[in-house]
This record gives sequence, structure tokens and C-alpha cells, in this order.
Amino acid sequence: MYGSANNSSSTGEYLLRCKMTRGMIYIYTGEGEGKTTNALGLALRAVGHGYRAIIIQFMKGRKYIGEYRVKDRLAPEYEIHQFGREEFIDFKNPMPLDYELAAKGLEFAKKALKRKPRLLILDEINLAAHFGIVKTEDILKLLEDIPEETTVVLTGRRAPGKLIERADLVTEMKFVKHPFEKNVPARKGIEY
Amino acid sequence: MYGSANNSSSTGEYLLRCKMTRGMIYIYTGEGEGKTTNALGLALRAVGHGYRAIIIQFMKGRKYIGEYRVKDRLAPEYEIHQFGREEFIDFKNPMPLDYELAAKGLEFAKKALKRKPRLLILDEINLAAHFGIVKTEDILKLLEDIPEETTVVLTGRRAPGKLIERADLVTEMKFVKHPFEKNVPARKGIEY
Repeated sequence: MYGSANNSSSTGEYLLRCKMTRGMIYIYTGEGEGKTTNALGLALRAVGHGYRAIIIQFMKGRKYIGEYRVKDRLAPEYEIHQFGREEFIDFKNPMPLDYELAAKGLEFAKKALKRKPRLLILDEINLAAHFGIVKTEDILKLLEDIPEETTVVLTGRRAPGKLIERADLVTEMKFVKHPFEKNVPARKGIEY
Repeated sequence: MYGSANNSSSTGEYLLRCKMTRGMIYIYTGEGEGKTTNALGLALRAVGHGYRAIIIQFMKGRKYIGEYRVKDRLAPEYEIHQFGREEFIDFKNPMPLDYELAAKGLEFAKKALKRKPRLLILDEINLAAHFGIVKTEDILKLLEDIPEETTVVLTGRRAPGKLIERADLVTEMKFVKHPFEKNVPARKGIEY
């Protein structure tokens, strides 16, 4: 998958240490498109193999999105739980409810990890952390106890440096070309 | 989805023209991770809304991958068709069969477009074009007739410039951090 082998004892040792202590942390960030979508693709793969994939969406509460509507067809391995309002958050002036819901999401994530899913997706948590809707320290604490068989995926723009530091793999989605930039309405079955 | 609105008449006109003539072309390229996975996430969303998503995999023939194994659970909207051998192609010395299978894939794609799916994913076609396994000109020809309701997604590293030019949206997946780089075996339910 990652091309040809390139062994070095230090990375080998690093890996061994990772494998013995905890599962992996993947971050998808950047201004480009495909962060949540990519995590959903991982979930699709996991479910294809009969593994459990738990998606926790922060700051999102719309049920008519594709990843939510597909859930019954991929049950019981595929789970999606939303901890946000239907409306978008005003980041300049968040509501107390925004913080409450996010805290509940984090609490749910903690319990979800105990079930040792193949994948635990914390969707939009990077942006939530950036704006202080969840505390980066609380996320770091959650990430201390990842079962060996679990990969935790954090999505969202503007991932705080402390999360980047902690992650095993960080991919930035970067727009190369986006001619209609900010004025295309999101299309059903593609962007949501 | 794309943040706040930023209207300009030229992009507005561009859009109008696009909408009246053909569906969109998305490219996911770059050395980073998440190109195929992202396309799979789009498929999941489309299927969630009850739309058809047709995935055509070039240079891939392994049936025990997650995106293949999930197909019955998402039928009939989700389709996946492979046009490759089980083994990896030796790009320095491709087999005649590699070219034949890729040509069949392209032929299949042409017919698939006629069914006006919400999504048509041409997985790894960028890399296939880069190495001449399929001709870029043949892909460009295929892309002339995209039904308005269809988005065509091209994935794979090293997308040729002519495809980038033609695409409406191009996202580059870029590694920010990948400490174990090239020596982690792909893990079931995550990388495949």
C-alpha cells in the first residue's frame, strides 16, 4: 500500500512499541475536501470485513445526511451517533448547548473505546478543539487508552498542534483546484 | 460545507455552464493517504440517499478487500467491478493482460455512464494513466459525456496534467506525518 519497504531499526522499534501499547491515531485535516468522507470510507471497509466502526459526529445533528441514512443497512457493525444541533455553530458565539453536546460526545467516545471497535471516528473534533468547544486536553486524555485493535480517526480542519504531535498518521487535504470555490451548494449524495 | 459564500459573476457563470452541460469531475491525487477511501466515503453517502454508485477499480483484482466484501449489503445501489489481476503490476514491465483489463474497465465505464449513476468512481485510474496502462486521451474522451446528475471521481497518485486541467475539483492528499512510513503492513479493515 505504501510502496516498497524501507526498514530502519528506529521506525521498526517505534512500531513494535506502538503495537504493544495502544492502537493507532489517524488525523485528517486541512482546508481541502475529503476529511469526513475519507473516514467514512474507512468505516465502509471495516464493515466489509465484519468489524465494528463507530462514528461520533461532533457539532453535527442533521439526520438526512448520507452517512446517517445508510446506518440501518450496515447495522450492527456500523454505528453513527451525533452530538450537535441541526444548525451550524456560530463559532464567535457558541451556545452553552454546543459545549454540553460536545462533552457528551466525548463521554460517549470513552465508553465506545471500551467496546474495542476496529474504528472509532471522531468526526469534526479537530475543529471543535480549535474553537474550544471541546478541550484538547480532554481529547488527549481519551487517546491515552486506545485498545490495540482500534484505530481512532480524528477529522476536521485546523487540528491543534498537540493532536498532530500525538497522532501516528496525519494527512492534510489540500485544494489544488476548486474553480467554483465557495459558492456551490452542497449536493445530496456527494457532499452530504 | 465550503464555508461562507464568496460570489463572483465569473465563477457563477462557470457553474451555470457546468450545470447545463455535464456532471462534475473530482480528482483525488497526491502521495498521501485517503484517495480511494475518500471515494468510498462518497459512495457510502450516495447509497445512504438511495442513489447509485458504481466503482470501477483499475489494476486491482483482490476480492477480499473491505470495499468489495461489503457489496452485497449495499446492493443494488452500490456496485464494484474490478479490472486488474490479483498481483500488483510491475510498472517497469507491464503484462499485455494489464493493458487488456484496463481497456475493458474503460469500456465498462463508458456503459456505466449511460446508466446515469450519482457517482462513477474510476479507482486508481490516475496512476494507470501516468504509466500508460490506459491512455489519458481515452479517459478525456470518456469524460466528454458525463450526464448532468453524475459526478465522476478519479483517484490515484500522479494524476496527469491533462486530467487535472479537465477536472472541476482537485484535492491533493499530502502526508504531514507518517512516522512509520513505508514499513507498516496494510491492515485489514483500515487500509483495505
